Amino acid sequence: MDIRIPKGFRDMLPEEALLRNNMIAESQQVFQSYGYLPIDTPILEYSHILLGKSGGETEKQMYRFQDNGGRDLALRFDLTVPFARFLSMHSHQLIFPFRRFHIGKVFRGENTQRGRYREFIQCDFDVVGSSSFTTDLEILMVAASTLHVLQTGSIAIHISHKKLIEEILQMYCVPQTKYTQIFRAIDKIHKTGLDIFKKSMENTLDHEILTFLLFFLKLRNEDLIQEIESIKSLTINNLATYFRNLQAMSSHMGSYVSFIFDPTIVRGLDYYTGMVFECFLIEEDETGALCSGGRYDSLTSVYTHRKLPCVGGSIGIDRVLACTHTSAVKTKISILILNLGEDFLSYYYQLAAHLREKQYTVEIFPDVRKLAKQLQYAEKKKISYGVICGSREIESHTLMLRNIQKKENTGPHTWEALSHLLY
Amino acid sequence: MDIRIPKGFRDMLPEEALLRNNMIAESQQVFQSYGYLPIDTPILEYSHILLGKSGGETEKQMYRFQDNGGRDLALRFDLTVPFARFLSMHSHQLIFPFRRFHIGKVFRGENTQRGRYREFIQCDFDVVGSSSFTTDLEILMVAASTLHVLQTGSIAIHISHKKLIEEILQMYCVPQTKYTQIFRAIDKIHKTGLDIFKKSMENTLDHEILTFLLFFLKLRNEDLIQEIESIKSLTINNLATYFRNLQAMSSHMGSYVSFIFDPTIVRGLDYYTGMVFECFLIEEDETGALCSGGRYDSLTSVYTHRKLPCVGGSIGIDRVLACTHTSAVKTKISILILNLGEDFLSYYYQLAAHLREKQYTVEIFPDVRKLAKQLQYAEKKKISYGVICGSREIESHTLMLRNIQKKENTGPHTWEALSHLLY
Repeated sequence: MDIRIPKGFRDMLPEEALLRNNMIAESQQVFQSYGYLPIDTPILEYSHILLGKSGGETEKQMYRFQDNGGRDLALRFDLTVPFARFLSMHSHQLIFPFRRFHIGKVFRGENTQRGRYREFIQCDFDVVGSSSFTTDLEILMVAASTLHVLQTGSIAIHISHKKLIEEILQMYCVPQTKYTQIFRAIDKIHKTGLDIFKKSMENTLDHEILTFLLFFLKLRNEDLIQEIESIKSLTINNLATYFRNLQAMSSHMGSYVSFIFDPTIVRGLDYYTGMVFECFLIEEDETGALCSGGRYDSLTSVYTHRKLPCVGGSIGIDRVLACTHTSAVKTKISILILNLGEDFLSYYYQLAAHLREKQYTVEIFPDVRKLAKQLQYAEKKKISYGVICGSREIESHTLMLRNIQKKENTGPHTWEALSHLLY
Repeated sequence: MDIRIPKGFRDMLPEEALLRNNMIAESQQVFQSYGYLPIDTPILEYSHILLGKSGGETEKQMYRFQDNGGRDLALRFDLTVPFARFLSMHSHQLIFPFRRFHIGKVFRGENTQRGRYREFIQCDFDVVGSSSFTTDLEILMVAASTLHVLQTGSIAIHISHKKLIEEILQMYCVPQTKYTQIFRAIDKIHKTGLDIFKKSMENTLDHEILTFLLFFLKLRNEDLIQEIESIKSLTINNLATYFRNLQAMSSHMGSYVSFIFDPTIVRGLDYYTGMVFECFLIEEDETGALCSGGRYDSLTSVYTHRKLPCVGGSIGIDRVLACTHTSAVKTKISILILNLGEDFLSYYYQLAAHLREKQYTVEIFPDVRKLAKQLQYAEKKKISYGVICGSREIESHTLMLRNIQKKENTGPHTWEALSHLLY
């Protein structure tokens, strides 16, 4: 048989899976400490729900098929669209402002170049039912706190407003049909630089607006805010004040985070309507955004008449995983009870239960094999200690202890003495 | 737009999702305390991999389709078949005996009657590379320990051997073509009783074998063991001794578990080759098996030449969830900081960070609303305490505390005094 898995998919071996599980558990703890609650939705949805109002790009990437009952179904490509559908069906059972998180697999049949996978985990957190400044700020705080707990290193949160560039293009009377192309080019500036942007836009934009954009897109922080203040025709309500208020609150974000107001943050997806952000590592420039999101006040209107303003973020667990060192896994002290004979099993089981109660990870070697073979297993699996009990130890209710890495035996020890010896 | 989800699928609201997340986290802790490590595999696999040698039944239930690249793919219907494929591809990177667990969604397009879902979570744990008695016993221990931690109540593990009934049918020269039908009927005895079994088999089996089966299938424990000892033509190695050895070790299983040797346990799947088991609640007879599994020493031979004996179990997380009371959720003490004005936000954020560090769940109400409205939210969300700080409290660096359920205010308190007041 031809044994393989589809292109763009992958298996995860124990070391990496353990690290990812821990990351997920730690993220959940942060979300819950901010009052966010988990939800779940199906991986399979009706295609028309997932497509909503979005265009051909999404459809091309979707895994879509007819089931045996003739239903037109697809695998979800993100957790936000199913969430909008979820809100429309369950809003009467929810308590608003509603804070939720959702961690699950999503599927995109996109190009697999550059280490992108067709199946990956999204880790979303959102607040629904408030359009206040504080919820925007809270989402940035949760993003920062989570990345901090995941030990990614210092991060910069690049922040803009979805309508900022749009309004500037309107001021210069750029036809709406060109917006998608322009946004896509701006979105790439972080990776490819302004020169490439300039070249790619020379045939699309007039000299005047291109010159202004090349000036404007370089602005950051106070320079950007002052320029925004000087553009009198901007209709976004008090954007400069909004940025300054965020800046004033940045002291609550922890010293590992800085805010950068950055007009090149435009986010590809059309459903954003307000603040948009992307979190980058300060030290490594190669890694893309570890977390991104923004405000999307009209997405739910596709599915419900109720007005439900939303703001949220999404952590790229697999991307964070790729830039974390596997040595960061916190593991418990692990013990292998060597198997010296089936007659001793009762003693081994008692001892194992005793040690597990004390929070150690305990295995009993399943077969009666040569000690060297059993120790080799412990060494390979990076187990901390071996416990050796033959008839002599069992008679005296003791045990011999072996430090696996140091290859040193000590003992006999009593069971009670053990917890002082393991560290 | 027509807003719905496909039949047999479901959303999970926060309360239930929280409970399920906690159950998964607790199961993981038990698995890890026995030295089991997590793995992951894709939800989508090539159809020919998932079908393996199995027949039409599996194929009918599979969500199978061609992707845009013309690949014949399907959603996994269990975690065991992908695991066999995983073992064949990665055995050189694994350390044997290999203990793994895997928790993930699986999909079966089966009849949705009787509360069955087409998408559900499986929670599998297996040992690979040993055919010893101790690994069989260990799987039963892990099953019992996990169900104990999940607080299901006392359980009975019904145990048999996959070949037991098969050999008896051979003794009576029952044609192999009838086996599937007979096994399916035996599998239902637990739910429907022996009388229905008798009726369903009257046209299939001769009087002699049916009479013997009706006698034999009623036997339990020592009666069964003695009957097995008396059937001299049984070729299963020392099955009576094997059962007696398990019985002798049952004292290590905890007082909430009992072993029942029960010949009606046959397990539907063909891949089992040795011990098979199902765990039932002792008190409630309605609920089906909460955990089941057994030894499958030849499944991997479909994918690899290497001999890899396996034994494992699978916990029905959704079934356990259905018989657990949601009040069992352990939650942290939760606090709502009421929002009395945007000028006070800095103080609120400092206080929230201080309290989160002390492991409390802390929310700040996002909008400046009437206090009654904010307290109503806290009440509905079952938040334990409200914290009220206006300009007076902020000046004196104190706070007022409100017990939400009792509707009682106390204070002003200092920040330091707070941890004595919250419980």
